[in-house]
Amino acid sequence: MQSSEFYNSPSRMILGQGPSHLLMGPGPSNIHSAVQLILADPMVSHLDPIFLQMMDEIKDMLRQVFLTSNEMTFPVSGTGSAGMELCMVNLLEPGDAVVIGVNGLFGNRMCDMAERCGATVHRVDSPWGEIVPPARIRTAVETVRPKVVAVVHAETSTGVLTPVEEISRIAHDAGALLLVDVVTSLAGCPVKVDEWRIDAAYGATQKCLSCPPGLSPVTLGPAAMEAIRGRRTRVRSWYLDVNLLSSWWGKDRVYHHTAPISMNYALHQALKLVLEEGLETRWERHRRNHERLDAGLRAMGLDLVSQPGHRLWQLNSLGVPPDVDAGAVRRELCQRHGIEIGEGLGPLRHRIWRVGLMGETSKADNVDRFLECLKQVLGK
Amino acid sequence: MQSSEFYNSPSRMILGQGPSHLLMGPGPSNIHSAVQLILADPMVSHLDPIFLQMMDEIKDMLRQVFLTSNEMTFPVSGTGSAGMELCMVNLLEPGDAVVIGVNGLFGNRMCDMAERCGATVHRVDSPWGEIVPPARIRTAVETVRPKVVAVVHAETSTGVLTPVEEISRIAHDAGALLLVDVVTSLAGCPVKVDEWRIDAAYGATQKCLSCPPGLSPVTLGPAAMEAIRGRRTRVRSWYLDVNLLSSWWGKDRVYHHTAPISMNYALHQALKLVLEEGLETRWERHRRNHERLDAGLRAMGLDLVSQPGHRLWQLNSLGVPPDVDAGAVRRELCQRHGIEIGEGLGPLRHRIWRVGLMGETSKADNVDRFLECLKQVLGK
Repeated sequence: MQSSEFYNSPSRMILGQGPSHLLMGPGPSNIHSAVQLILADPMVSHLDPIFLQMMDEIKDMLRQVFLTSNEMTFPVSGTGSAGMELCMVNLLEPGDAVVIGVNGLFGNRMCDMAERCGATVHRVDSPWGEIVPPARIRTAVETVRPKVVAVVHAETSTGVLTPVEEISRIAHDAGALLLVDVVTSLAGCPVKVDEWRIDAAYGATQKCLSCPPGLSPVTLGPAAMEAIRGRRTRVRSWYLDVNLLSSWWGKDRVYHHTAPISMNYALHQALKLVLEEGLETRWERHRRNHERLDAGLRAMGLDLVSQPGHRLWQLNSLGVPPDVDAGAVRRELCQRHGIEIGEGLGPLRHRIWRVGLMGETSKADNVDRFLECLKQVLGK
Repeated sequence: MQSSEFYNSPSRMILGQGPSHLLMGPGPSNIHSAVQLILADPMVSHLDPIFLQMMDEIKDMLRQVFLTSNEMTFPVSGTGSAGMELCMVNLLEPGDAVVIGVNGLFGNRMCDMAERCGATVHRVDSPWGEIVPPARIRTAVETVRPKVVAVVHAETSTGVLTPVEEISRIAHDAGALLLVDVVTSLAGCPVKVDEWRIDAAYGATQKCLSCPPGLSPVTLGPAAMEAIRGRRTRVRSWYLDVNLLSSWWGKDRVYHHTAPISMNYALHQALKLVLEEGLETRWERHRRNHERLDAGLRAMGLDLVSQPGHRLWQLNSLGVPPDVDAGAVRRELCQRHGIEIGEGLGPLRHRIWRVGLMGETSKADNVDRFLECLKQVLGK
């Protein structure tokens, strides 16, 4: 392809001039204009005092969002999966036992990563669309006596919220560390790292923080840091080695890698918006719009299908009615109405749509627009 | 800190309204306004057809910049060091032998990563500021018979360009794969992946591509892919496993991770600018401005100090004159004149300044402005 062709390519036209889609899938969510604009700010060096100050402010704001006083709270220079991998490669050594709750795609991913660390993985499988029952975690923990217990708080693939507080008690009673995936829960529903005694957690920027994808906020508590400092073997990843990263993100500023500058601008701005709104207000907004969606769907004779009492506010699993082509509905919503929703994954493929109400996307107007358009597409 | 304070924080003021620094350090370089602006484009999903098309266009343009037909040519969702780690963890297995040329910081980093892969590392050390002599690589390769030979093409820490063509012959004569760090060379001086028979190479966006940091362009040739597909053990990193990434970046589009959308917009735009200018023209521009700098410095009685005949055009090691405080000069250049240059690292600390002329920064006006300001600061 000649380079001149790119200027007239569809992507240039749509990206530069086209209307913005309403992003009601599993993430990325829509971005506040203040976050968009700051991405265009001039470049500075990763060693510029102004950027170093920004790093400190990001750490400080992330602590407020994670509800923690953990010193080692910072954004990993990669996506949410890089945050997951950072936690795994630092906490686990060859031969370590880990109990992992699996009720969707991201629990599976945790197992895959833990195996690559050389750990012995004990899965506690639960049907997709249901929580990981704490009682079954207890049985596994009492049998295995693992170093780490890991669960996904909000399963993006199914729309289920697993109760972390109870699992935390079980893990700590057995002397294990608790690792929690808060990718979809962070800033969209309560995530209380210190109160719930979560030892390590990782999130992502493109869900309820409403920032572009590309960074993964991570927090590591004192017990996790002690385990990392006391390792018998080196961390298998240089890029994600917390021993090195803590010198770069700490007071010493020992150069590690060149931070993604623009993405950190965006995260800084997105966190300011979260804290301006206030965490409780933001959670409440997510709850309210979920209920608005639920009521509207029921009025249309449609149902959310994840386990009652454990449904996420920010990711709604909507059952596909019999004889409806799930893919065709998604395509028409997107192409005719500019609304993007997610498809089902794994065993839920063709059986659910995933309707995201995350961050900037979680607004009453958006819920109403979606309900109206869905009604048209389904001919209701 | 209260969230309201952030709106009036120094970082907000400087980032939003302050003058842009002239970034003449080791990277990031200055960014073209078209690249800045596209970062502010609306968010799309990583599964949107328009984004999938953009991924294909990025791969295609990267092939043109790497001068390769390698199918597996794509940007890693992390910084340059993530690209380095991707190459190491995929090419090396426990017990594999690797010969690594070390003449600066990034050769050291390669050794560190290779050790974490369980490989047996044979270092060929050369003084900082000099090339890695091909003859010494030959001796090591003939003794060790390694699986991989790895060198840094353009050492950002010293400003030296190691001759890769000769090392390629040596590696291939011994049946080894050649891995090359082109972080600072890519798009700033000739990098000919296919012609030079480079099996694997990784770059970074924030140097001569003049894009914000956050992605690492990587290319893997047929022999490298064959070695990866034929591994006896699993890749130690899930995030960087090329077997998985090739399904996501290939025709199958098997979901792996949520790509950093905005950063890919920026890379797409930056690559268009590179190809519009033309690679040869761009290299020539970098050469010309390096010579302008060199002549101006010599007229002031100052000297570039890296090995003659092997000096980089895009990163110039300027000797600190006797009795001059290297740090004080850098600070005054930055604070009074808005020009940022880099300090020396390792054994060259306090002995050199690193003057970058990369991508958008490499302009005659910038060279002249730097020379004039340096003259003032040094009282010449």
